[in-house]
Amino acid sequence: MNSFQFQNPTRIIFGAGTVNKLGEQLAEYGKRVLLVYGGGSIKANGLYDQVQQQLQQIGAVVHELSGVEPNPRVSTVRKGIELCREHSLDFILAVGGGSVLDAAKAVAVGVPYEGDVWDFLMHKAQITSALPLGTILTLSATGSEMNGNSVITNWEENLKKSFGSIHAYPKFSILDPTLTYSVPANQTVNGIVDTMSHVFEQYFSPTTNTPLQERLCESILQTVIENGEIALKQPDNYEARANLMLCGTYALNGGMISVGMQNDWSTHMIEHEISAIYDIAHAEGLSIVFPNWMKYVFNARLDRFVQFAVRVWQVDPAGKTDEEIALAGIQATRDYFTRIGAPATLGDLKINGKELDRMSKETVRFGSVGSFKSLDADAVHEILELSL
Amino acid sequence: MNSFQFQNPTRIIFGAGTVNKLGEQLAEYGKRVLLVYGGGSIKANGLYDQVQQQLQQIGAVVHELSGVEPNPRVSTVRKGIELCREHSLDFILAVGGGSVLDAAKAVAVGVPYEGDVWDFLMHKAQITSALPLGTILTLSATGSEMNGNSVITNWEENLKKSFGSIHAYPKFSILDPTLTYSVPANQTVNGIVDTMSHVFEQYFSPTTNTPLQERLCESILQTVIENGEIALKQPDNYEARANLMLCGTYALNGGMISVGMQNDWSTHMIEHEISAIYDIAHAEGLSIVFPNWMKYVFNARLDRFVQFAVRVWQVDPAGKTDEEIALAGIQATRDYFTRIGAPATLGDLKINGKELDRMSKETVRFGSVGSFKSLDADAVHEILELSL
Repeated sequence: MNSFQFQNPTRIIFGAGTVNKLGEQLAEYGKRVLLVYGGGSIKANGLYDQVQQQLQQIGAVVHELSGVEPNPRVSTVRKGIELCREHSLDFILAVGGGSVLDAAKAVAVGVPYEGDVWDFLMHKAQITSALPLGTILTLSATGSEMNGNSVITNWEENLKKSFGSIHAYPKFSILDPTLTYSVPANQTVNGIVDTMSHVFEQYFSPTTNTPLQERLCESILQTVIENGEIALKQPDNYEARANLMLCGTYALNGGMISVGMQNDWSTHMIEHEISAIYDIAHAEGLSIVFPNWMKYVFNARLDRFVQFAVRVWQVDPAGKTDEEIALAGIQATRDYFTRIGAPATLGDLKINGKELDRMSKETVRFGSVGSFKSLDADAVHEILELSL
Repeated sequence: MNSFQFQNPTRIIFGAGTVNKLGEQLAEYGKRVLLVYGGGSIKANGLYDQVQQQLQQIGAVVHELSGVEPNPRVSTVRKGIELCREHSLDFILAVGGGSVLDAAKAVAVGVPYEGDVWDFLMHKAQITSALPLGTILTLSATGSEMNGNSVITNWEENLKKSFGSIHAYPKFSILDPTLTYSVPANQTVNGIVDTMSHVFEQYFSPTTNTPLQERLCESILQTVIENGEIALKQPDNYEARANLMLCGTYALNGGMISVGMQNDWSTHMIEHEISAIYDIAHAEGLSIVFPNWMKYVFNARLDRFVQFAVRVWQVDPAGKTDEEIALAGIQATRDYFTRIGAPATLGDLKINGKELDRMSKETVRFGSVGSFKSLDADAVHEILELSL
């Protein structure tokens, strides 16, 4: 186990009907609110009205930043910052999924900063303060509701960048599993893949002697695997939705499950190069690439993949070599993603091999990627070929 | 899963040599420090000098509250509160195990309160603020380093009471596993039993549909079981000490592993009645009572005890009835405690049966105890008889 620091100050308020706690949560903070949301779904399902009612009850002054994109844009964030400054707003309330929350975080850190918020994404300036932020989550996936991370896209410069800051942790996040009943099946699938991928990125680590953290990772994986299929068959199964929601939050809440472990985000980086060229969801790319990354790297640390197969997928080790056990676990991962309806190949998404060179080179633009196994352009190319 | 709120703002700084981070951690807070510690062990092992050096480097003004008792007394807490007021101290630094940390928390919440701090223990007043508090942990056991709980004893009134408050969470806790190398074997054993008992109290719950939380509990139990024995054989095995320390912290850090689950603290309460009469360590009492509580209650929810036996103790279910599987898991718990040197019976501690009536009645003074299975005086008596 490596040395580490860990802190996660976000308060989570979890359960059916917890949107009704919004007023009392806000009471601790300001009453001049920027309400941030995406498309019309929260208006269609009544959540918008519920939120407005809570805000009215405490006499809040509310301005809105709506239409936040699935890949939130820095231009939208800048609009939010201006609204806050113009109307002297002192609290940001995000209602939506990871994109909405990420945009709201960027607004929160941007308001007290004299320069342009994009500086934080380019790591040209350090975040030292933020407006307080609260969230109401409508989609289990990114963990953004209990961490300080944000991913923002700048289309003018063709860049997708991220920041992480202790100041960007939400003060509170309201997690009501019933709000996810109406999430379309493909988005539920993406959320499952996203949550599992977050765990993989921590679990497949070069760090040794981390038995508790490994088990915490395995606990989330097993629970997502079981409950993902239930939620897809019964979208309004409260327990399945609640279990998925808690798993999504715990999977990426500031590293609680992987304290003292080096992470490996190379699959994430490879996928970003695919979705930089083709308009696919991040989780769709992860579903395709992750099992192939596993096939390419598993020999770097066979014991971890054997453990993964046996503990997470209940692969019976009897009569098998370690390599066979590991490969059975990887195949089980692939089969699960396929079974829930996530894509298996780039071909499934009508993507052919003509951009593999470009994607491989872009992935390693700043040098080799990966800590579990270091990958150069050729290695990335091979993983992408496996993914065709 | 039940609805819940969870928040844990404590920053943990974990690893060998992290005492050297004390100065930079303190820089965020005041420089007028009350240093709280117990006996002379931190002077003997050099930790006291290291701490003083860090404090001097930042030019801190330091006053001391030393000699905090294993069961910290409200009279000692009052002394600390007076020191803070007299010298206008603005930060509390606790260096020690759970008792020292608990005393420091009581000082922290007592200073800004106009009445007597004991009011908080009797729930006559609500905690609304506290001096900021930091800790350096020297013993893995209570989880006090990352929660807002404190247990304080009032000998004048023969009462041992507790409080919990979000204001009493340490701002930071420095966890250096090497500081636990010199902990005597019997205290290491007590820490193991204490940590496992905290998990039992959350895991054996009447709440259903909590698969993630159950697995998180099992993860800690398995990791403690493995690493406890290693640490006892090799007291300076860094990895074993680090794993135990992380387990102790995660086992009781504001309920992270059991969010949305009803807890059952009846064994805790039974034990308190034993140690109210006999001078034994809390963990010694728990080691005796817990397996017998298990034997008495397991039929209330056989499935949980079957799962416990199979997942935590790897009991082979083949050819066994559920009851046999459950009992094998309970026996494995008893055998483990005995194997590491924890007592199995009250007789082992020279305690006979003459006070069983009194202890049983005191346990249920305010009504039946327990949520996994409700226990009246007769039930408690039976559990105590099993423990003779």
